[in-house]
Amino acid sequence: MASCDFGLIGLAVMGENLALNVESRGYSVAVFNRTTSVVDNFISGRAKGKQFVGCHSLEELVQSVKTPRKIMMMVKAGPAVDDLIEQLLPHLSPGDVIIDGGNEHYTNTERRTAYIESKGLLYIGTGVSGGEEGALKGPSMMPGGSEAGWPLVKPIFQAIAAKVGPNNDIPCCEWVGPRGAGHYVKMVHNGIEYGDMQLICEAYLMLKEAGGLSNEELYDVFEEWNNSELQSYLIEISRDIFSVKDEEAGGYLVDKILDVAGAKGTGKWMSQLALDLGVPSTMVTEAVYARGLSAMKAARVKASGILQGPTVATAGVSVGEKKAFIDAVKQALYASKICSYAQGYVQLQAAAAEHKWPLNYGDIALLWRGGCIIRAKFLERIKEAFDAHPNLENLLFHPFFAEATAKAQDSWRKVVVLAAQLGLPVIEFSNALSYYDSLRRERLPANLLQAQRDYFGAHTYERTDKTGKFHTDWISKRATPKS
Amino acid sequence: MASCDFGLIGLAVMGENLALNVESRGYSVAVFNRTTSVVDNFISGRAKGKQFVGCHSLEELVQSVKTPRKIMMMVKAGPAVDDLIEQLLPHLSPGDVIIDGGNEHYTNTERRTAYIESKGLLYIGTGVSGGEEGALKGPSMMPGGSEAGWPLVKPIFQAIAAKVGPNNDIPCCEWVGPRGAGHYVKMVHNGIEYGDMQLICEAYLMLKEAGGLSNEELYDVFEEWNNSELQSYLIEISRDIFSVKDEEAGGYLVDKILDVAGAKGTGKWMSQLALDLGVPSTMVTEAVYARGLSAMKAARVKASGILQGPTVATAGVSVGEKKAFIDAVKQALYASKICSYAQGYVQLQAAAAEHKWPLNYGDIALLWRGGCIIRAKFLERIKEAFDAHPNLENLLFHPFFAEATAKAQDSWRKVVVLAAQLGLPVIEFSNALSYYDSLRRERLPANLLQAQRDYFGAHTYERTDKTGKFHTDWISKRATPKS
Repeated sequence: MASCDFGLIGLAVMGENLALNVESRGYSVAVFNRTTSVVDNFISGRAKGKQFVGCHSLEELVQSVKTPRKIMMMVKAGPAVDDLIEQLLPHLSPGDVIIDGGNEHYTNTERRTAYIESKGLLYIGTGVSGGEEGALKGPSMMPGGSEAGWPLVKPIFQAIAAKVGPNNDIPCCEWVGPRGAGHYVKMVHNGIEYGDMQLICEAYLMLKEAGGLSNEELYDVFEEWNNSELQSYLIEISRDIFSVKDEEAGGYLVDKILDVAGAKGTGKWMSQLALDLGVPSTMVTEAVYARGLSAMKAARVKASGILQGPTVATAGVSVGEKKAFIDAVKQALYASKICSYAQGYVQLQAAAAEHKWPLNYGDIALLWRGGCIIRAKFLERIKEAFDAHPNLENLLFHPFFAEATAKAQDSWRKVVVLAAQLGLPVIEFSNALSYYDSLRRERLPANLLQAQRDYFGAHTYERTDKTGKFHTDWISKRATPKS
Repeated sequence: MASCDFGLIGLAVMGENLALNVESRGYSVAVFNRTTSVVDNFISGRAKGKQFVGCHSLEELVQSVKTPRKIMMMVKAGPAVDDLIEQLLPHLSPGDVIIDGGNEHYTNTERRTAYIESKGLLYIGTGVSGGEEGALKGPSMMPGGSEAGWPLVKPIFQAIAAKVGPNNDIPCCEWVGPRGAGHYVKMVHNGIEYGDMQLICEAYLMLKEAGGLSNEELYDVFEEWNNSELQSYLIEISRDIFSVKDEEAGGYLVDKILDVAGAKGTGKWMSQLALDLGVPSTMVTEAVYARGLSAMKAARVKASGILQGPTVATAGVSVGEKKAFIDAVKQALYASKICSYAQGYVQLQAAAAEHKWPLNYGDIALLWRGGCIIRAKFLERIKEAFDAHPNLENLLFHPFFAEATAKAQDSWRKVVVLAAQLGLPVIEFSNALSYYDSLRRERLPANLLQAQRDYFGAHTYERTDKTGKFHTDWISKRATPKS
């Protein structure tokens, strides 16, 4: 009976597609779903004629898989995973591997790895990115957890993962690190995705509103960008989107879509954890807030009739300036994107230091190189940077990125300036610029802030010219106000 | 033995000063501190000759206070408060009131109120702002918890609180709401304080670096601002700071203070909760991140030698433009401050809706009008706005603030533009402007973002022209790429 190479629980679309992917690489797969009719439909449908064993109970699933078992859960993150683990445990044997492929908060994966290991089993929490299509044809995979489990799942994971490289044979799947490290890296991936999407929206806003570009022109611009250093999946699908007509109402579909963005929470998690770590991940946070602002549609409609825009007349872009303007927006997008990735890596480094995860940052760039939503040529440069300097403290300090931002900055500033003059909100472009300009400054005005804190709360301050903590009785030393 | 009107536990500086404040209003106070020598030193020192009873045990403290007892804890927030409550409970009688005056996370106060009420007692979690001096002479107080406890503590709280109004008789202390509402309002106060401080630092950066103002000139500017709509405690103490000389090394002390800002966590809490609520409290979050950036001093020193600043030469402010420039910075500061308060109130409203707290927003402005760190004339306008429109959904929609920002915006834009051109980071000024310009836009570019989410993840979208959720098979409908 124990004939299968792999077990998979949860046949929603991601689970089903992953199961088909695993089977397509020559592995037999036992599948189970709580609503068992889903299993039957799958077996008689997409799985027909393939090496699948449909199971109607967890016990049957476990007994269908060869030891040491590899059993992957593709169920809703949170308490459902804990429940499922409790139901699985009595049936498993020492050395079996439980795998969680959901978008789980890394703290749960930290906890579960310790728990499962205490039972003599192995646990792997893996990020899986690429959407439905990626799950079926080759996702990016970011596994972490019990290191002893890695050799057991590695052949299957690397077989199903996306491939990159000149010969298309380097899998976008490598061991990330202990406990929750894989899910943390997946969360940072998603946070960077939030930033990339918002940046593209701001480029769109500028091109459309300041540059007056039509959807046809936007298509051509994004097509051109996709053959440049901006090449990426998100630029590619944005290009595609600009070409899709609204079959019913006429015109382009993108113009009919309501400007209210949803979110599923990983960008929020990354922001909240950045705040806990004290690292300035402004790009993901402002992208999350921008979605929040988009969702305040009723308030915006009301505000549009109350709040005034620029009263100094500023023209948009003239026909003659169009080409230079499009290039300036491209530079703003590129430089801001570099800042966003730099912040993501700084957060990863801070988290790794806190949790003692020995992360390989070059490998992480490789995992994101293909299969996932943020896949892009650009990630090769990041891999090269971290391979050459494993302890690079900020991506911006690497010559390639320092030069790229230096080259982009005049255009970047022009776009931020034009947006402020025209009253167009480009939160990410301007935030990235503020981040860049803050980092560049040896001296920020926080000396005044520390003086304030010492004045009203005796919080003490440090000095530039000697070490130690100092407190001043400001009231007794201040000048007598003239008024 | 039970002779005292009030009990206070925890004689660190805030507790000691609050106890002296209560006693100074004609109430007798029993005091206790875990390290009992602190009690003895207090009784023989600052408390000498006053109506204090020094206690060496919690039991003694409880027995020294008349029922229904009012016993205030001024100890470190978190588990220490839970421990103290457990030690107190066996000695208390039904109807007694336990008060927590620390900077507690509101979720703990929510939980403790229910717990203490289940024991037949009353619980009040109160925000106390104003630093050491405020505690002694008149703090702003924001009490919430068991409403039945309010009439019992009201006379004492309103006696010790700061007073405002033409006759200086309106106390900055009013009942806020159930359970954790008082501590939530205090947290928002602190978050707004973060924003105010960062805004002042950015004004300082612009005036000093772009305008070339000396500390003497900064003193005069802040003195002038403190007699305008910007009048506030934080402007006042900033003015004072610019006047303080460094007695040892010469020059001004503010120039010797290290630009590395500390933080104690309430700004972070507010940001994390804004993210949970989905409301865009960008100002507090960027202020927290700005402190994080200030703390990355070593990285900044390194970056200052790597990252390039503007290559297009842009002059600073000429002597002839100085006056107009100073006024522009003032307008940027004022408009940004309005946005910051607007965001704080939006977050309060969202939290009140979530927790069913019947908050009175005009009263909250009054609580902050005096005594606390953000005290300012400006809060009278906010009180008036909410008194006139208790359900005002955004402060910016009120004619007073809509007009103020309309009047300020051209200057505000100029400052943001100049900062981008000069490479000076004014994260808050530009963020506030992006918030203002986002809110003003009936249509944001989030339609593209929703199209992207539907393309790669089948997340569906809504339309502008009909209701419902829609999904498009973008791949089958897209144009064939030219390349």
